[in-house]
Parts: sequence; structure tokens; C-alpha cells
Amino acid sequence: MTSAAAAALRIHGGRVDLAAQAYPQAPLPWIDLSTGINPTAYPIPPLPADTFARLPLAAELDELCAAAAEAYGLPQGALMLPTPGSEIAIRLAPRVLTDTRGAQAGILAPTYSSHAAAWRAAGAQVHELGALPDVDAALDALVIVNPNNPDGRAVGAGPLLAFAERWCAAGKRLVVDEAFADVRPELSLLRGPALPRGLVVLRSLGKFFGLAGVRLGFVAVNANDAPPWRDLLGDWAASGPACAIATRALRDDAWITAMRRRLAADRRRLDATLAPAGLTACGGTDLFGLYEDQYGRDLVDAFGRAGVLIRGFTHSPNRYRFGLPGDAAAWKRLERVCATLATAKTANTALV
Amino acid sequence: MTSAAAAALRIHGGRVDLAAQAYPQAPLPWIDLSTGINPTAYPIPPLPADTFARLPLAAELDELCAAAAEAYGLPQGALMLPTPGSEIAIRLAPRVLTDTRGAQAGILAPTYSSHAAAWRAAGAQVHELGALPDVDAALDALVIVNPNNPDGRAVGAGPLLAFAERWCAAGKRLVVDEAFADVRPELSLLRGPALPRGLVVLRSLGKFFGLAGVRLGFVAVNANDAPPWRDLLGDWAASGPACAIATRALRDDAWITAMRRRLAADRRRLDATLAPAGLTACGGTDLFGLYEDQYGRDLVDAFGRAGVLIRGFTHSPNRYRFGLPGDAAAWKRLERVCATLATAKTANTALV
Repeated sequence: MTSAAAAALRIHGGRVDLAAQAYPQAPLPWIDLSTGINPTAYPIPPLPADTFARLPLAAELDELCAAAAEAYGLPQGALMLPTPGSEIAIRLAPRVLTDTRGAQAGILAPTYSSHAAAWRAAGAQVHELGALPDVDAALDALVIVNPNNPDGRAVGAGPLLAFAERWCAAGKRLVVDEAFADVRPELSLLRGPALPRGLVVLRSLGKFFGLAGVRLGFVAVNANDAPPWRDLLGDWAASGPACAIATRALRDDAWITAMRRRLAADRRRLDATLAPAGLTACGGTDLFGLYEDQYGRDLVDAFGRAGVLIRGFTHSPNRYRFGLPGDAAAWKRLERVCATLATAKTANTALV
Repeated sequence: MTSAAAAALRIHGGRVDLAAQAYPQAPLPWIDLSTGINPTAYPIPPLPADTFARLPLAAELDELCAAAAEAYGLPQGALMLPTPGSEIAIRLAPRVLTDTRGAQAGILAPTYSSHAAAWRAAGAQVHELGALPDVDAALDALVIVNPNNPDGRAVGAGPLLAFAERWCAAGKRLVVDEAFADVRPELSLLRGPALPRGLVVLRSLGKFFGLAGVRLGFVAVNANDAPPWRDLLGDWAASGPACAIATRALRDDAWITAMRRRLAADRRRLDATLAPAGLTACGGTDLFGLYEDQYGRDLVDAFGRAGVLIRGFTHSPNRYRFGLPGDAAAWKRLERVCATLATAKTANTALV
């Protein structure tokens, strides 16, 4: 593998096409465990052709937001706005929230890299933090992914709301990215009594519902903070298909409940599968696990040669994020690689 | 009809749900002629479930941009970037192009209202212009919709490029919105030799291909101007379905050629249908016509009562934009209303 390809595979998950180029000899199909996206996607209902043809109606967009508010919760006086993916909401947040040029932004790190990229691109200075800062810290804004990707670190909803109220009362801005909170609903600020002004909560349809291709996310804010978001997003931020699929998915309580249970079981199975290969669980959520390798091996390479794409991190070279296998064949391939790794504990051994 | 509903119907097209509330007695189905969207949408190919599930691959996004560059043209040294609808590109343009607070932005008017809204929301002062300004005008940025919506006013590609080169060389920014240029390809700057720095060209899949629900647009810029767009849009600005559908549509030369011919014929038929009702064509493109009423009637109301939604303008109360009817029933309804109108030339006569 070239070092450029290796670097690209450590920037984002989901680059199975790059992986296939880097490992042309790997068995097919590629098994992509590099993301935290549920491999068992919500089933796509039949979509009438006019879903693609006409603009989503105001009533349909209202229904979508109502369904999101029912599924996630929505405090009194807050508004839910759809976005074309939560990635673009992450990118827009610095522009909406602050006069970013020269702003000081804290980010609880390590975390999803787009947050820091977005604030730096907006001209802010980014400070990586290990814990919630003091309210009087010299920061204009703070980003928390809760529960965090990749390590699953979580701040309870009660303490976080108390912090948010004091932080925002001091005129500071707060982004709480709840992209993975579908499997930790008790953590969500959207179940709380109010969203203070200056706080934005991000949600994503892509992860838990396994619908990353639909590109739909939500921004929840105090209603008084909504106008600048509306100004940037315009009137049709959700596509017709996204509207139709997500309104249904968010209201499918039976699917949601069963899926939470299944993901929890699969996550336990993932821990048990990786342990014999020398990989110790050190965090995660029910949508992915973070594992530490005891032996200092290059496991992106080792799994890559077996056609399994996992996620490495430049900031933590011994740690790897694994998503959940989606079917029996994927579990089998993973188990086979783990069996080989269990007997190949030195770095850079030819594994597969 | 309430005045609030009447006002809402004059802000944007496509609000057939509001119209149906305002005119509960109108015959069904509603016929929406209020937009410039082609009523004969490009046919949606079968979409595999994983189009919705996984993130679009880098290779698929590259293919999409290549298809757009083939269909629209792309000057040497320029880049094509997908956006989740051209509306959001309109909204982001002021933030990307200028330090907008206090910027002076000229807009060739009247035109699509989101341009002025976007610049005002970004803190710019907007100046409505009737023609291209002098290069030394006291403006930081200029917006041209070419061909223009609703009047079809067009600036030739040669003169516009010459203007763009001088304008941008003076450090000024230029937005050229080519949302309707699919039916006037000879006008497009994308067929020219180069895009100067500071110029952004917008394209839309929604209008000509009749796929407004897909939410896909493109931004074409000099490659040196691409980084701030990438920073705001992130890596997955097109959805999986948008990628799959648009890549195919943009490469379907036979459909494109036949559709241009059909739209031109339908537009001639529209002029001929409306003329006996006292509506004189005063502009447009092959996707819509702008008509002036000789008799000062409230035609949004008159057509609304017949279940036909058309577009009125607060800035030009005697002018109306009509999109193209999509099928025989829609043409028939339109002809019936026009026959009634031909004999009801005074304002506010009960028409239907």
C-alpha cells in the first residue's frame, strides 16, 4: 500500500474504493467495518416518481420535522430543522454561531475530525480538550460529540445541560453532536426541558438507520437561533426521497426498539470476536467499538489484505475502530482474520 | 383567499399545498404551473438499496462531476463541485466569496428572490440593477441569472466572459446562475475557455431534468477558488440517489436533445394558449413564459379558483410566470380557463 493510500484510509471511514485499489489481491466483496454506520439499513419504502420530481411540500417538511421531534425529543421553545446530511451542519455551525475569524474554539478530542476542520476553515483557532472546560475558560465556542466517536466517552444529559446553561449564559456557543445518540437516547439534550440560546444539537439519520446515502441530518436549536440556519439552508434542505424515507423511519418504533436490541447484541459479539486476536475493547457505542492492539501491529494493513476495511487513527496508532459486520459472511471473514491474528502477534507478520 | 396565503403564493413557486388550502373548492388534481421545473421528469432508474445505505464513494462522486462537465462543459483549470440543490449554493455564495458584512452586492433584477435574500442575510447591502454595471461601479459582488428567471433576459457568453474577466480582475466577485441554461446552452460560461478567479457558475439538475426533489446542483469555479467551497460542503454533498440518477441523466444525450425540442414546442403552444385570454408573452425561456395581462386582473386568484397554480410577482403585479403543462389533462384545464378569461376581461370578475 502506498503511504498516500494509507493516509487516506485514516482520514475518514467509508473509502472502500480506495482500499480496493490499495489491496487489489484482497478477497471480494470488501467488508467495510470502517464506519459507525448500521449495516442493517432501514428498508426503503416504494418511492413514487414524483418524490424525485417535485420540490418537497412545506407540509411534508413539517411532517418530517414533527417525526424527528417525536423520535428524538424536542424541548419547549426549540425548533428542528432538516439538513442535507449532518456533515454540512458541522461545516456550517462555525459560520452560524460566531464571528469566527479569530474565535477560540474548544473541541473535546479525539473525535470526528470534521469538527476541527470546519472551525479551522472558518478562521477559528482550535484547542483540543480532554474534558469539559471551566465556564470562564478563554474560549468562544465548544464542540462535544456525545456519545463520542470513536471512544464512546459520554457526558450525562443532566450535567451537560447544566454546563450548557452556564456556558451559553456567558455568551459562548456550544455544539453537541448527537450523531450516535440513537443508541444512547438517555444522553440526549433533546429529552431535556429547554435548549439555551447559543446551543446547537446535531442529529444524523445516517448512522443508526443505516441510511448514510440519503444525506439527512437535523439541527435542533432554540427557536430564536433558527433564522440564520434557515438563511443558509434555504427552503428545501431535505430531498424528496429523504423526506419520505425519514418520516417513515423515525416513526417506526417497532423497528427502532428491535434494532437497539440487535445492535447491543452485535456489539457484544464484536468484542468477543476481536478479543482472541489481542484486541481489547476500550470504548465505543453499540454502533462501533474502539479497540487497542496489545502488539503494536499495523492492523489497517493486516485486515486490508483480508478485504476487511477498518479505521485507524493517526492520533492513536494502536487503536482501531470496528463497525458491526452486517451478515453471516462478514462475521465469518472477520472471525477468520481474527483466528490468524491470534497466532501472529508480532508487527508486520504476513497475516493472510 | 387570505392576504397571508396570497403573499405566500407570490414568494416562491411550488406551494401547491398552500394553494389547495386557499382554494378548497378548486377542481382536483391541482395543476402546478408556478415553477420553471420541467413537468416531464427524467425517468428514475432502479436504485439498489445500497444507494441509500452507504456513503457515495469518491469514485462515484468523481463520475458525477465528470458527467456534469461533459454535459455542461468545463473550462480548462476549472472544477465542478456537487451541491445538495442549487438553492444552498445560492445561500452559501456570499459567505464563500466575500467578507460580506458591509459588502455592496449588485443583482440584475427582477430575478429569483433567493439571491438578494442570501446576500442580505450575510450582511451585504443589495443594489438592484437593470443592466451590467460599469467595472468601476462601487460594488464588491454581482449576481446575474442567465438566462434570467422570470423574464428570460440573456447576456451572450462572449460579452459576459469579457465582462467577468475585467470585473474579477478588479478583485470583484461574480455569481452567474445558469439554472435555466440547459435550454440556452450557447449562453453558458462553462463552454468558454476559462473561469476567472472570483467567478462562480451555478447549475441545477432540478429544472431541465425535472428532478427538483433530488436536490442536486453544481458549482463550477476556477480550481484555485474550490477550497472554501469544499470546506463548507464537506465530502458527501450529493446523496447516493442523486449521484446515481444525475450521472445517468447528464450522459443521456438522446433524452437531452429530444427534451430541448419538446420544450421549445410546448413553449410555443403555451404562448398560443394564453394569447386569446389577453396574456402577452414578454419573456421567458423554453421552461417557462412570462406574460403581461392587458386587463389588470388578479390572475393568481382567477387561475387558483380553477385549480391552476401560477406565479405572480409583488414587483410586477400585471406579470405572471407560467410553467409548461405536463400532460393532456393539464393543457385541457389551462385551455378551459383561458377560454373563460377571454370573455372576462375586467378585474375580479367571477371567472370559473
